[in-house]
Amino acid sequence: MSRERQEKKEWDVRASTLARNTHNTIRNIVECLKVEPNPQKELIALSIGDPTIFGNLNPPEQVIQAIKDSADLHTSRGYVAAKGLLEAREAVAEYSAHQGDISPNDVFLSSGCSHAIELAITALADSGQNILVPRPGFMIYRTLAHGLGIELKYYNLLPEEQWKVDLDDLESQINDNTAAIVVINPSNPCGSVYDKEHLSEILDIASRNCVPIIADEIYEHFVFSGHTYTAISSISKDVPVLTCGGLTKRFLVPGWRMGWVILHDRHNILEKEVRKGLNNLSTRILGPSTLIQRALPSILKYTPQSFFDEVLLFIENQAKLAYDELRRAPGLKPIMPQGAMYMMIELKMALFPEFKNEFQFVEQLVTEQSVFCLPGKCFEYPNYMRIVLTVPEEILREACQRITLFCTEHVTYENRKEKENADIAATNEIPIININLSRLP
Amino acid sequence: MSRERQEKKEWDVRASTLARNTHNTIRNIVECLKVEPNPQKELIALSIGDPTIFGNLNPPEQVIQAIKDSADLHTSRGYVAAKGLLEAREAVAEYSAHQGDISPNDVFLSSGCSHAIELAITALADSGQNILVPRPGFMIYRTLAHGLGIELKYYNLLPEEQWKVDLDDLESQINDNTAAIVVINPSNPCGSVYDKEHLSEILDIASRNCVPIIADEIYEHFVFSGHTYTAISSISKDVPVLTCGGLTKRFLVPGWRMGWVILHDRHNILEKEVRKGLNNLSTRILGPSTLIQRALPSILKYTPQSFFDEVLLFIENQAKLAYDELRRAPGLKPIMPQGAMYMMIELKMALFPEFKNEFQFVEQLVTEQSVFCLPGKCFEYPNYMRIVLTVPEEILREACQRITLFCTEHVTYENRKEKENADIAATNEIPIININLSRLP
Ligand SMILES: Cc1ncc(COP(=O)(O)O)c(C=O)c1O
Ligand SMILES: Cc1ncc(COP(=O)(O)O)c(C=O)c1O
Repeated sequence: MSRERQEKKEWDVRASTLARNTHNTIRNIVECLKVEPNPQKELIALSIGDPTIFGNLNPPEQVIQAIKDSADLHTSRGYVAAKGLLEAREAVAEYSAHQGDISPNDVFLSSGCSHAIELAITALADSGQNILVPRPGFMIYRTLAHGLGIELKYYNLLPEEQWKVDLDDLESQINDNTAAIVVINPSNPCGSVYDKEHLSEILDIASRNCVPIIADEIYEHFVFSGHTYTAISSISKDVPVLTCGGLTKRFLVPGWRMGWVILHDRHNILEKEVRKGLNNLSTRILGPSTLIQRALPSILKYTPQSFFDEVLLFIENQAKLAYDELRRAPGLKPIMPQGAMYMMIELKMALFPEFKNEFQFVEQLVTEQSVFCLPGKCFEYPNYMRIVLTVPEEILREACQRITLFCTEHVTYENRKEKENADIAATNEIPIININLSRLP
Repeated sequence: MSRERQEKKEWDVRASTLARNTHNTIRNIVECLKVEPNPQKELIALSIGDPTIFGNLNPPEQVIQAIKDSADLHTSRGYVAAKGLLEAREAVAEYSAHQGDISPNDVFLSSGCSHAIELAITALADSGQNILVPRPGFMIYRTLAHGLGIELKYYNLLPEEQWKVDLDDLESQINDNTAAIVVINPSNPCGSVYDKEHLSEILDIASRNCVPIIADEIYEHFVFSGHTYTAISSISKDVPVLTCGGLTKRFLVPGWRMGWVILHDRHNILEKEVRKGLNNLSTRILGPSTLIQRALPSILKYTPQSFFDEVLLFIENQAKLAYDELRRAPGLKPIMPQGAMYMMIELKMALFPEFKNEFQFVEQLVTEQSVFCLPGKCFEYPNYMRIVLTVPEEILREACQRITLFCTEHVTYENRKEKENADIAATNEIPIININLSRLP
């Protein structure tokens, strides 16, 4: 051992800064909740964005068969290029043609969309820099950035305008250390879907300030009737866009960990360093399982449109059901989503004076009614809760009825006027007829 | 935008330090080689540590079937705990009982062994700290550490002592910033296997200096007849050991990306921070595909011992074949491995004065003989080259013959005496009889 150094006498092994500062907000908050459900009522978890839990939503047989066929190939077991198998990247490029002109070289396969986001963030942002993320927004960004010393700055979404971006707020957050703007569209947790005009407004800000965009489009195509999904990359004139996606939600296989980043860069702004940086980063742990990479061309090409349509129709009807039930619940204001698989519900906390915050509301809802919704705090957005729409219809209906009962039992009107207003608000809106859909395959 | 700030006029998007400083040594070096094979001879790549390339080595049918069965389960598609499915971690704990007492809680599933190593390094080491790695050694450590500002320090292995650790050198490298000692056993690229006594000597140094060990045992059980694999964790009295492993090599499925870290910590030294740190880190991108996690209990329990025995016997015979052929090649000194699937070969560069270094030797070998071996530089070890032993027997034999021919054509003796000595050396050793094994399933 080096001579200058005294022998240590005691073990004192510390964790790294990265390890200490990596936190998963949802997990931490959920762990802090005192969730002891009512033993009289079966627990209904409307908390986890996993459409596979109840077994009511399954990928089509072709997708499963593609995996089984892949398992038989000896070429599905070996190492492939760090950024992914060429055939798989070609398939992603073709599948993603709505995003713009894509060469297989622009595609980096990743272990789920979380890994895609990690690649995008760590390619662009250094410790001391910041990335702008929506509030409310899915918090993986915090989990991935914070430990690396990358700061998060929040820009507000406007609930009264279907969660559009507060553009002034967005622009005011940009500073010289801003490495990227994250746009989540369709949104988790809001279920909002931005039209072309609004996306252009966001792009204008990015362009004016020369900040690239990380587009989280893991819910691409997940839009309800009357709304249109536009890939932000497809209308970007100059702003480089790193689009993160994957099989996770649309193919109902979050556990498979199959994601990707796609580089969109008409003016070769990322050629200077970032493309090479992404290539470097992809050699760290390599990407998704070759087993699934081999199956990807078949999965992306042969999954029938009818499958996607059926899933979407189901979720849209679930949204209508939940909206229609919950808008009658005293003290709640659900916001009808336009896509994705969630609904945000405002809690008029003034009407529930016994609860200090939405946290206590959500806790007591578990204790009494065994229904678990995620408190808005999980998305940096108090006074709201989020529900997941992919559970079977009867379960969602039951959950909504229990939530309504809970609200009825706990709402406290300060005066008669308040109650009348609430009643009028509830009956003024046109009820949405729920189409009774049998469970999907 | 913030008032104090002037609008930027030009795009100038840079890559992060992490992205710029992440390098995959092997890939970079291979890309720098002028490898234009001889069009007259088919290329034989002895360069990639992937036993699946030629299709001569395949996992047993049970393993493939386990995946297909898993694909049918709706529970193989959803999110699971960040550190992995409990049943899968239980199976790993049981399968790894030779390493010590393991609870499923000590197991963290990862996307391949590379990700396991990333978890272990990033849990322990901060920017500015260092980790000690063997020289020669597999360079994933550099790829993972360097970009994060974690320094690599090398300790030497001794070729003349079957690549044992130079213990004095190891201890002299430790300083106050040393976060971990990496021990790769069995070794890539050396194929060495350490006995209990030697592992104890390494542990003593770690213990005296209170430095934890990262044990890279991705080649566990991969040892030839006459040698014994000992898990370093199993004989550690106080030193905390983070053992990294996985299905990759032993089950012949590197592409599946199924790995794990196991915490061994008799004295609860890691309870202070590191276990929690690992739990935090595992929430970043989650671990391996649930599809494979679900299959893991069946894979680990029902793969027959005969499968492992056959693969090992094949590789051992390949090692004997290559050793026997190459020790006759003028100017080469192969070092017989004791396990894993590689062989290191010393190049007596003095006998090849036309080549400035092993790099040029390896390049010219491709140009003339279309045989591609990895230059020692890939392992921080000049004057050596590494070959992979898992290619089919006829191909390995052909490659060895071409290498021998190449050496014969290029060797240059300065005087008669040198030549005589070389001849004596070559004939003095007892030839090893190669058992002609048909291809394994
Ligand atoms: C907006 C958003 N981005 C990314 C992810 C992560 O997806 P994956 O499971 O593929 O890592 C999710 C998952 O819920 C999400 O909602
Ligand atoms: C010593 C060593 N450790 C780790 C790895 C990485 O294994 P994986 O492919 O599971 O990431 C390798 C791969 O060759 C290796 O040789």
